[in-house]
Amino acid sequence: MEKSEFDLIKSYFAPLASGYEEAFDLLNDAALISEKPQASTVVTMDTLIAGVHFLMSDPAGDIARKCLRVNLSDLAAMGAAAFGYSLSMAYNSQIDVGWVKEFTTALGEDQQRFSCHLIGGDTVVTPGPLTITITCFGSVARHQCLKRNTAEVGEDVWVSGDLGDSAAGLKLLNKELDVSDAEARAQLIHRYRVPEPRCDLGIELLQNAISRTAMDVSDGLLADLGHIARASNIAVELYEDKIPRSAAFSALMSSSPDLGLALAVTGGDDYEIVFTSDPAQEQAIQELSRKLSLKLSKIGKVVSGHGVRLICRNGKTFLPTKAGWTHF
Amino acid sequence: MEKSEFDLIKSYFAPLASGYEEAFDLLNDAALISEKPQASTVVTMDTLIAGVHFLMSDPAGDIARKCLRVNLSDLAAMGAAAFGYSLSMAYNSQIDVGWVKEFTTALGEDQQRFSCHLIGGDTVVTPGPLTITITCFGSVARHQCLKRNTAEVGEDVWVSGDLGDSAAGLKLLNKELDVSDAEARAQLIHRYRVPEPRCDLGIELLQNAISRTAMDVSDGLLADLGHIARASNIAVELYEDKIPRSAAFSALMSSSPDLGLALAVTGGDDYEIVFTSDPAQEQAIQELSRKLSLKLSKIGKVVSGHGVRLICRNGKTFLPTKAGWTHF
Repeated sequence: MEKSEFDLIKSYFAPLASGYEEAFDLLNDAALISEKPQASTVVTMDTLIAGVHFLMSDPAGDIARKCLRVNLSDLAAMGAAAFGYSLSMAYNSQIDVGWVKEFTTALGEDQQRFSCHLIGGDTVVTPGPLTITITCFGSVARHQCLKRNTAEVGEDVWVSGDLGDSAAGLKLLNKELDVSDAEARAQLIHRYRVPEPRCDLGIELLQNAISRTAMDVSDGLLADLGHIARASNIAVELYEDKIPRSAAFSALMSSSPDLGLALAVTGGDDYEIVFTSDPAQEQAIQELSRKLSLKLSKIGKVVSGHGVRLICRNGKTFLPTKAGWTHF
Repeated sequence: MEKSEFDLIKSYFAPLASGYEEAFDLLNDAALISEKPQASTVVTMDTLIAGVHFLMSDPAGDIARKCLRVNLSDLAAMGAAAFGYSLSMAYNSQIDVGWVKEFTTALGEDQQRFSCHLIGGDTVVTPGPLTITITCFGSVARHQCLKRNTAEVGEDVWVSGDLGDSAAGLKLLNKELDVSDAEARAQLIHRYRVPEPRCDLGIELLQNAISRTAMDVSDGLLADLGHIARASNIAVELYEDKIPRSAAFSALMSSSPDLGLALAVTGGDDYEIVFTSDPAQEQAIQELSRKLSLKLSKIGKVVSGHGVRLICRNGKTFLPTKAGWTHF
């Protein structure tokens, strides 16, 4: 890199902190968070690595957006309103000033969109792949948040948006799948590169007491519901024909429906919100869906027992063979 | 690794969070911080990489301690009392369960010693070197902290402990230096591997209004005082014969005094606290030194102008040639 760490921070990162007074223009060893007395701060942390969580060939701006947004998605799953983040970038010789400029410009745009500021961080040189860690901070009413261990038998299971797009997008990038429709291809790849965190949904679910139990879908729907099932000591029953899939995804998968179903429920990287709710809340959820212009699908039930079962159209049960559902 | 991420967290990391209720046993997407109304939370973040900030051949426990303590040192430089940290570990095939056990055992010991808890984090697999990022949280009186931009002409410059030990320890490990005295060798290498964050010093300086301006010495005394000089728009004058050096260091460097001086003031990784203070505080500082059983040395003055000058015994000025003082 042709600039020193000091110049890099001053030119590209400090401006991202200028709206947050207690970041001290990134000149101190640390920043301050001074919450209102009736609030708690929610803290989440995610590391993303080139070649693992994104591709080095992805545009720098998309990498920036993904790194910030997967953290915002965690805050959404807790029902928190984001206000700040610390960023550590371990960069290597593949990164030049132009890349940093594109990366920080995209962060600046996302900061505006999601109402948060850079408040601190670290830059270091690594002999390894580009590695970005963000610790993200949000605000909730004191001691209040959505959890994983509060699901109850009889509740409905809901999920936002569509599932599988991101996993299909990665397979298109890796040439494991192909599609002639250029628009569908671009749409699926975009869903892999740039998640859409459901911030408003999480906040509304918590503040209006529509749900107490939520997660964001990062490891895949079945794996993440498995975490809720374990933590809450309940089981989840899902129905294949209720799993929401986009038109682009369904068209791509029309000739391989089994792979399509697997990608939708185990592919991961969806960053949708899965939540449980009392059936009496159904109308409130439909209204919330209209208010947020966001598809919300009732996909199953909380039942007694252990684990997650997906009931297929043919009446059989989809049962991955490996713990963690990491392989289909 | 023979264990899944889920088992790893449950077996080794979750116990480190058990004393912090709003970490939810690491089962949720995020943790909560619920500060007292009259407090602010101080946030700092540091990434350490094998081969850059520590050696993969260092004991796993020492790596754990270094990763946590460099963050605690940043909190000390702000005058904050640590209470929690989030940890992200990007590990590779060099890491096995035994290594993780040793690493987390050392974290547990340091947690007790420094009164803080793990509150969250992330574990990921990397094709690169072991990369550990910690975001550390401390508490201060609302909106109060030590800063870099508050040094004033006429103040004295003080530093804790001894300088250069860590840089000499690294040179011993890298076989760039050698010493026959086994005890001195072990002592210097230990100072490289396991910093001693001056937590109590930072808190006392802030709470007793002895100082308003401090930093921890990580890049090297001259570089770090350069940050204070720039931020405060003042200059600093230091005196060679006041720079505190340990007996082991002085003995090792007795035949190369120029290299010794360079290591002490530019070597870095010292994690001592450098601070400025009104001359009227000298007695309070001497008392604090006795109370904490910690050497505190008056090494120079804040003067008008720009930059940092080190006045040598021969009356000449030590003037590194490169901005950032990264090379001697």
